[in-house]
Amino acid sequence: MIGVAVVGCGYWGPNVIRNFSALEDCALRGICELDARRLEPLKRRYPAVRATSDYDELLGDPDVDAVAICTPTASHFPLASAALSAGKHVFVEKPLTDSVDTAEQLVELAETSERILQVDHIFVYSGAVQKIRSVIDEGKIGDLLYVDCVRVNLGLFQSDLNVVWDLAAHDVSIISYLVNQIPEWISAIGSAHYGPLESQAYVTIKYRDPLLAHVHVNWLAPVKLRSTLIGGSKQMIVYNDLEPSEKIRIYDKGVTLLGDRHSRERALVDYRTGDMFAPHIERTEPLEQACRTFLAAIKTRTPPLTDGRAGLAVVRILDAAQRSMRKSGERIYLEPTR
Amino acid sequence: MIGVAVVGCGYWGPNVIRNFSALEDCALRGICELDARRLEPLKRRYPAVRATSDYDELLGDPDVDAVAICTPTASHFPLASAALSAGKHVFVEKPLTDSVDTAEQLVELAETSERILQVDHIFVYSGAVQKIRSVIDEGKIGDLLYVDCVRVNLGLFQSDLNVVWDLAAHDVSIISYLVNQIPEWISAIGSAHYGPLESQAYVTIKYRDPLLAHVHVNWLAPVKLRSTLIGGSKQMIVYNDLEPSEKIRIYDKGVTLLGDRHSRERALVDYRTGDMFAPHIERTEPLEQACRTFLAAIKTRTPPLTDGRAGLAVVRILDAAQRSMRKSGERIYLEPTR
Amino acid sequence: MIGVAVVGCGYWGPNVIRNFSALEDCALRGICELDARRLEPLKRRYPAVRATSDYDELLGDPDVDAVAICTPTASHFPLASAALSAGKHVFVEKPLTDSVDTAEQLVELAETSERILQVDHIFVYSGAVQKIRSVIDEGKIGDLLYVDCVRVNLGLFQSDLNVVWDLAAHDVSIISYLVNQIPEWISAIGSAHYGPLESQAYVTIKYRDPLLAHVHVNWLAPVKLRSTLIGGSKQMIVYNDLEPSEKIRIYDKGVTLLGDRHSRERALVDYRTGDMFAPHIERTEPLEQACRTFLAAIKTRTPPLTDGRAGLAVVRILDAAQRSMRKSGERIYLEPTR
Amino acid sequence: MIGVAVVGCGYWGPNVIRNFSALEDCALRGICELDARRLEPLKRRYPAVRATSDYDELLGDPDVDAVAICTPTASHFPLASAALSAGKHVFVEKPLTDSVDTAEQLVELAETSERILQVDHIFVYSGAVQKIRSVIDEGKIGDLLYVDCVRVNLGLFQSDLNVVWDLAAHDVSIISYLVNQIPEWISAIGSAHYGPLESQAYVTIKYRDPLLAHVHVNWLAPVKLRSTLIGGSKQMIVYNDLEPSEKIRIYDKGVTLLGDRHSRERALVDYRTGDMFAPHIERTEPLEQACRTFLAAIKTRTPPLTDGRAGLAVVRILDAAQRSMRKSGERIYLEPTR
Repeated sequence: MIGVAVVGCGYWGPNVIRNFSALEDCALRGICELDARRLEPLKRRYPAVRATSDYDELLGDPDVDAVAICTPTASHFPLASAALSAGKHVFVEKPLTDSVDTAEQLVELAETSERILQVDHIFVYSGAVQKIRSVIDEGKIGDLLYVDCVRVNLGLFQSDLNVVWDLAAHDVSIISYLVNQIPEWISAIGSAHYGPLESQAYVTIKYRDPLLAHVHVNWLAPVKLRSTLIGGSKQMIVYNDLEPSEKIRIYDKGVTLLGDRHSRERALVDYRTGDMFAPHIERTEPLEQACRTFLAAIKTRTPPLTDGRAGLAVVRILDAAQRSMRKSGERIYLEPTR
Repeated sequence: MIGVAVVGCGYWGPNVIRNFSALEDCALRGICELDARRLEPLKRRYPAVRATSDYDELLGDPDVDAVAICTPTASHFPLASAALSAGKHVFVEKPLTDSVDTAEQLVELAETSERILQVDHIFVYSGAVQKIRSVIDEGKIGDLLYVDCVRVNLGLFQSDLNVVWDLAAHDVSIISYLVNQIPEWISAIGSAHYGPLESQAYVTIKYRDPLLAHVHVNWLAPVKLRSTLIGGSKQMIVYNDLEPSEKIRIYDKGVTLLGDRHSRERALVDYRTGDMFAPHIERTEPLEQACRTFLAAIKTRTPPLTDGRAGLAVVRILDAAQRSMRKSGERIYLEPTR
Repeated sequence: MIGVAVVGCGYWGPNVIRNFSALEDCALRGICELDARRLEPLKRRYPAVRATSDYDELLGDPDVDAVAICTPTASHFPLASAALSAGKHVFVEKPLTDSVDTAEQLVELAETSERILQVDHIFVYSGAVQKIRSVIDEGKIGDLLYVDCVRVNLGLFQSDLNVVWDLAAHDVSIISYLVNQIPEWISAIGSAHYGPLESQAYVTIKYRDPLLAHVHVNWLAPVKLRSTLIGGSKQMIVYNDLEPSEKIRIYDKGVTLLGDRHSRERALVDYRTGDMFAPHIERTEPLEQACRTFLAAIKTRTPPLTDGRAGLAVVRILDAAQRSMRKSGERIYLEPTR
Repeated sequence: MIGVAVVGCGYWGPNVIRNFSALEDCALRGICELDARRLEPLKRRYPAVRATSDYDELLGDPDVDAVAICTPTASHFPLASAALSAGKHVFVEKPLTDSVDTAEQLVELAETSERILQVDHIFVYSGAVQKIRSVIDEGKIGDLLYVDCVRVNLGLFQSDLNVVWDLAAHDVSIISYLVNQIPEWISAIGSAHYGPLESQAYVTIKYRDPLLAHVHVNWLAPVKLRSTLIGGSKQMIVYNDLEPSEKIRIYDKGVTLLGDRHSRERALVDYRTGDMFAPHIERTEPLEQACRTFLAAIKTRTPPLTDGRAGLAVVRILDAAQRSMRKSGERIYLEPTR
């Protein structure tokens, strides 16, 4: 029985509490929140759970094996490093931290303390993204040519993060998981419409040729869109997360180059238009899968899909995008990872 | 009665022939095409029209007042300059030419010869774009914050133009018409998947703050998308050209900044979610409108909506995008127009 | 403070419990369920609430002012009549009962005992249906010509009710609320594909000329559809309950008869095609509105929108549809209501 | 070389003219139309073709082997019987005629005169319907349980035909082709909103158990819908003719009965939810296929898919629907066909 405490009961925390309190092999031991108005209803709902505004109290509790951190991003580093130092496993909301430096420190701390560090990059645990990954792995899609992501809606403006760290964190984690490469460079352009933080951004991520990824994130769009186009040399995929069913559509379509690829002359191409196939996807709550993965990782001492290193890789890309936005869209080359 | 000759009977030419042959106050006088297999069926369909492979023959015909050029882009400049020099009015497919220099020469030539030069930027003549422009002009949308265009499909790869000169020419003409500004800079990233020409590109066009425009064009997408998001400070528009009806949806939605806009602190914002309105749009063929406009411009000697200068403005942007693509996405600042 | 007890903790009961436990001016006093496996988790979640398998225990509790009945339809009559006889107000899942006779008895019992009897015809409390009703009431839609409802999906087969009593109950309650008339006759055709109960049915409901309503319900459809077309002489409405936003679209479209309406000759008509308007609808949980309405009805002693009489009107139509299905689609004329 | 003459140049005639004039192995010999304003532009477009207002002139022309009749339905019988009597093959717009009696006479006349009689039930020749038929024939769909058709839009009111003879003719021809059975009975309910002809109707067609077909046709709907649900015991199909691609979606979904089918007890069922598959469909113009089929039928003397007997079968169903509408929705049993 793994004892879990959750810190931060704002928008997402209650979902994490609900999941950890319902999973077998796991006991919700504590809830920590500074705002008494948020803590009160949770106290009533979970009367047997220690509810406190004192984080250290939870860290000192020997029944707490793991801490789930659902607080604003700026506090991820101090809270996670304290938990790891206290010997707790850590499940932390995305993004891992708000800087490469702190993310690297957390990864190192988790490794030296031999604790599990998992970032809640929730879409990686969705049936849809898992299915796309397996389609790519089977090789039917051919070489990946591009990944194009659109994640736009009206709001919710964050107070401490721009739209890249907020929304693009999802797409970057999905792309990183699907592509399984370190990018060569990142370039980004953003607009801050209200206040100092960017509320719209275009992020380009260049992988090994010919693969290019691009993300449009926007808090100021009139409609909600969550769509990803994945172009392969043999097949192509449309992933629309808002579809109630058929979230993934695989198109047996493509282009065949006739003649010499490197011809300076015109490309003579032929189009292949075939069937479309929408594989059945199990409807599981991605957060439940993420929580189960965390518990399994603790038991088996094997790193989860979105471990600290995966979370760090995402932070490196978001940080590069941010730096590029501040430098007129200049290409930011990622240094080789330690 | 204005006599019109059409040169180029490939993909689009027959549509132009059909329209000019049907319009009142206008007579189709000639058809010119080098490929006899294309010319033959048109000869049979329009037995009273002079059909030839000799362009000069048409230019020498005093009954031909105007020439419509529907040939590959590389030939636009020589054919249009010859026609203007011969005193003919010119209607030319988009883009005007394939370089800023030649586009400038055509504009000058049209002005000195006092002939009408119109580029067939067809979407500008669509009921949808006309309606969006009138909504913007009425001011209900507030300040324009962004224009985001997606124009993707499978094929048709062009042999002499990349996807920017082919597909983005449409979006750039629409944006230019709606925004009515000279951009500050252009930046673009492209990928050439088959042969030397880019088949996918992302083009960013920066206008006066806060306005940013962005275009995704792609010949390698599994689905056909033609959508434009237009964000205003008061209202927002979604324009989906593939919708059979309700191509335009106007959303009475927005964000209100609470407190100081330039605060270094968090933006406190409030969301406004209201009705959606899809104005009725007359179903007219945009090409018919373009042809009518050309004839009216000849009669009244007033420049059409997409005259040579408008076409040149589009070419400047496409040329800058091309240069940026070749320079790693570097920002290309447009020089002040002569 | 109104004390509420909920009986039946299957599919829907927990939602009713959640709502009554959260509303102000109301206290959840008891939960009744025969199946211990369902009762246990609710006991843990609501430790302060009396949880029992003995319904009479709840009826004997003076702190229980009202009972919400969320059990299979066949048990609605005995449970509701016992509650009303014990002086409790009753909130009962749809349909009110499974026969006209029992529904009439409940209405009478509620009236003689001066208790509130409300049927949970939940869609009547939705923002969408409320908005449609107000559009109809304003008269802009003109005369109602038809209401066409489609409610199809795969499953959930009920064990004690056919698809008419299950799914069409929703549409009949919506239509009854919008139309506000007693139908003249009902006709229905159904198919029983698995077992003795109809899993697909078409129900026609004839109101005063020219109004005709029609409902297609189906447990055997590959896709989920929830759509209603409402034709008026001046405007028309499409209500798609699966749309995340814009559930209602009002079309300023219609037909104008040119010349004599009763001409034996051809109808000369003219089409009017105008704007489409999707009014903003507040996103409230319909069940919460239904629960609030019930509490307000108790306090003010005014009948709720879907009181016993409204529930009886629905049962009369469902019963007539069932009789028609068994009689080859014969028209069943409704007797004048007592 | 088969000589074809077309009579009737209203809405559909010009499309038939265009197709027959373009097909190889076929020559357009004549055009007949009473309205000079319609005939004039066709004369100019097809200067080599005999254009006349005298139908007998065409029938007397030995170069005319076949006549395509695109006139109002009431004239189909006299025009087609005259043509067949003159030894011409006949291609006639749907429906074949406006009564069972006249349809039977034409079928008999075609057979005795050994001429081809083909009804232009155009959807039967579409790639989508052909694909659905082959899916059914392969048996993967299992037993057909239901076919549900919706064909609604605003207009076009016909002056001589109600919505059943106009729109439902399409669905009845599709259903007849797919189902390949004689129905047991037909029942229909209609409403005449403007003038004497029904502008909305619901038609039920009962085939051998368990198959039920249902058609909703409506000239007074605010949106255009063209959708067909086909339920099989193993798979189900959604056919949406308005989809630009993926017109057919095959769902590997179904219900499995657990236990005894004829149990008076509740049906215990299990749901199977699997993949969705949208087969690629060739984009061919259905009318072109229909015209090609007609020419091939003449050459090979084999009856086309929609020969006179198929057209008569449709007329029998439409006639029964009409009679049912006039008799309060009474079931009309089809007599065994001669």
